[in-house]
Amino acid sequence: MWDQLYLDLHLAVMTEGGAAYGAIRNGALAVTDGRIAYAGRARDLPGAPETLATRVERLGGSWVTPGLIDCHTHLVFAGSRAGEFEMRLEGAQYEEIARAGGGILSTVRATRAASAEALVAAARPRLEAMIRAGVTTVEIKSGYGLETETEFAMLEAATRLGAACGVRVRRTFLAMHALPPEHKDRRADYVRLVCEEMLPEAKARGLVDAVDAYCETIGFTPEEVERLFETARALGLPVRLHAEQLSDLGGAGLAARYGALSADHLEYISEDDVAAMARAGTVAVLLPGAYYFLNEKRRPPIELFRKHKVAMAVATDCNPGTAPIVSPTLAMNMTCVLFGLTPEEALAGMTRNAAKALGLQRETGALEPGKAADFAVWRVNEPAELSYWIGAAAPALVVAGGREVHRA
Amino acid sequence: MWDQLYLDLHLAVMTEGGAAYGAIRNGALAVTDGRIAYAGRARDLPGAPETLATRVERLGGSWVTPGLIDCHTHLVFAGSRAGEFEMRLEGAQYEEIARAGGGILSTVRATRAASAEALVAAARPRLEAMIRAGVTTVEIKSGYGLETETEFAMLEAATRLGAACGVRVRRTFLAMHALPPEHKDRRADYVRLVCEEMLPEAKARGLVDAVDAYCETIGFTPEEVERLFETARALGLPVRLHAEQLSDLGGAGLAARYGALSADHLEYISEDDVAAMARAGTVAVLLPGAYYFLNEKRRPPIELFRKHKVAMAVATDCNPGTAPIVSPTLAMNMTCVLFGLTPEEALAGMTRNAAKALGLQRETGALEPGKAADFAVWRVNEPAELSYWIGAAAPALVVAGGREVHRA
Ligand SMILES: [Zn+2]
Ligand SMILES: [Zn+2]
Repeated sequence: MWDQLYLDLHLAVMTEGGAAYGAIRNGALAVTDGRIAYAGRARDLPGAPETLATRVERLGGSWVTPGLIDCHTHLVFAGSRAGEFEMRLEGAQYEEIARAGGGILSTVRATRAASAEALVAAARPRLEAMIRAGVTTVEIKSGYGLETETEFAMLEAATRLGAACGVRVRRTFLAMHALPPEHKDRRADYVRLVCEEMLPEAKARGLVDAVDAYCETIGFTPEEVERLFETARALGLPVRLHAEQLSDLGGAGLAARYGALSADHLEYISEDDVAAMARAGTVAVLLPGAYYFLNEKRRPPIELFRKHKVAMAVATDCNPGTAPIVSPTLAMNMTCVLFGLTPEEALAGMTRNAAKALGLQRETGALEPGKAADFAVWRVNEPAELSYWIGAAAPALVVAGGREVHRA
Repeated sequence: MWDQLYLDLHLAVMTEGGAAYGAIRNGALAVTDGRIAYAGRARDLPGAPETLATRVERLGGSWVTPGLIDCHTHLVFAGSRAGEFEMRLEGAQYEEIARAGGGILSTVRATRAASAEALVAAARPRLEAMIRAGVTTVEIKSGYGLETETEFAMLEAATRLGAACGVRVRRTFLAMHALPPEHKDRRADYVRLVCEEMLPEAKARGLVDAVDAYCETIGFTPEEVERLFETARALGLPVRLHAEQLSDLGGAGLAARYGALSADHLEYISEDDVAAMARAGTVAVLLPGAYYFLNEKRRPPIELFRKHKVAMAVATDCNPGTAPIVSPTLAMNMTCVLFGLTPEEALAGMTRNAAKALGLQRETGALEPGKAADFAVWRVNEPAELSYWIGAAAPALVVAGGREVHRA
């Protein structure tokens, strides 16, 4: 007997190849022990529903998709940057905002001043909003501590958030997000601290699932990033990289050479590096929220990703400075409207390809027997509606690992 | 005795002039008979709270704003245009989409085929989403019928929606939204039908609060609009106009000559017509959702509206073809990010100035004694957060006419 059987639904199983969305109309979905036991046509079920499962629920013709996966967020932080946003729109210049204590270092100050409990309390409403919007897996980065204690507190807060909310959290170590003020004139010291002390200790404490850095003229150089990647390789940790957001430093190519799970942003990537990502199987993570919020004009080269068959993921990049957004379907809409993705590519970007960007492709991201029972139920007539509405599509039911985490 | 007294809050009363947002920290708000009885400093209350009101509620330091007013929507329609959105992103050309039955006429077909009950049922979740986002007044236009019976059914559906959801609905007659297919070669006949039969009858049935048209090369000419405005004037109905969205036909100047409540869109307006709007007291309604969804590049001239002191309102323009958006705070964020409004201007645009665009400035749009008790309670540290978050700000409590319509 299965634990639960869902009927009267259409499936968007989101496996690769085959029908658009992997659509199975008049489908059935069964769950046992938190895993998918059946995802296929209702008429192919091996018996009468009541004989197959302990509980049977009819979903009134809804569409069922894999649970959404937000594979790039900075969800854990303290403070707000609304005041800075307001100053900028009232005409203040960058220097004035910096003098008033704005910029990423204001978030660093507020985050350093917060306890792990306070970080959990601040982030929880954001994660709950994501769950109500269909998310069952979320990646959360450190990077507003920039010193050992707060970086670890952020990673601990991320761990606790997953347990508190019943969804899967992957933790990414991002101490090389910005240069901390106390290392302003000692860059090399900070890189050494991160590589020789912080990362090995974070790994030893079981706080980190992957390693990331911000490779940019205003961030870290490719050489500094390479030293971090060498450390990660020695520790057996997968890497990913914020690359080519504002200029082309060759970060995506570097990431590909290290077999990175993903390279993220990529507005300025070259075709050579797109090809390198394709060879390495590195996922391109598109972050339209920051592009929108910063009023950028150069889009990531979608046509090149398609041409070279680089898998594209879509994420919110939720962060207080450049993307105060918690809606996965709004990020999907933005990739369609602003970057030209199709609704099917956008949904693949929040499911199958996002799982790949987290190294979770065998665990989640598609509705297949054996994978975790992570799914969302939408009262829509077609899956394109998830991307068509400007952030307004909302699931009626969200299940993570077989357990309901939201019901509207 | 007041009916209800709210304490432990900050007020953004949004009256003109004075402090930013009309902010009153450590404020109090009292309601009697559905009207605001007190909106001021808590310490100026004329007695101990329990002696002043039947019920006292403490709001934990929340900010209270006027209820949001979405002054331009096409909320009542049947069908979806998600399939057309998907076709376009998959590379289909305009003609192909038209052949597949897309475009505004697909919404007209679906809306004509729906009963008033079906129109209410389709629109209700959209209005409920708006109310959960803080809306207490919404304008709804006809314009997907383009023949008498369906135009009236849309206006009736709008009337019923307001009663069903407990919020104020203003109904705008927009039969001159597009040329109906059966009048394709008989434009003059349609304008005559609208002006001589439909509008007078709609007025006689009490179905219409204002009159609107789509003045554009692909819509109606200024001469056709003027005939409609003459009819409206004779019937004593206020006018407004979709103008200068895609080109400059002088529609806003025409609207100003007729003392229009508002001119809406305005990306291509000339400075002369901005000055004419200022003289006439016509509100400029900014609709960033359509600008975003259509990937437009020319912004409305915010600096000119400021220079000439034209009041700016902000609205979702919720419609299935060019703005599938139901979030007022997302529209506010878009006017800041895409058009450069300040967060205070954006909030004024969804409150005080939106009320003016509906001729309701004496009734709602600010927190002042005597006005309707329409307000929203936000758990934020400063009112700028409503515009800063990309559509994620959500009120804890929404009250319309003194009655709770949403509590989170
Ligand atoms: Zn990021
Ligand atoms: Zn409109």
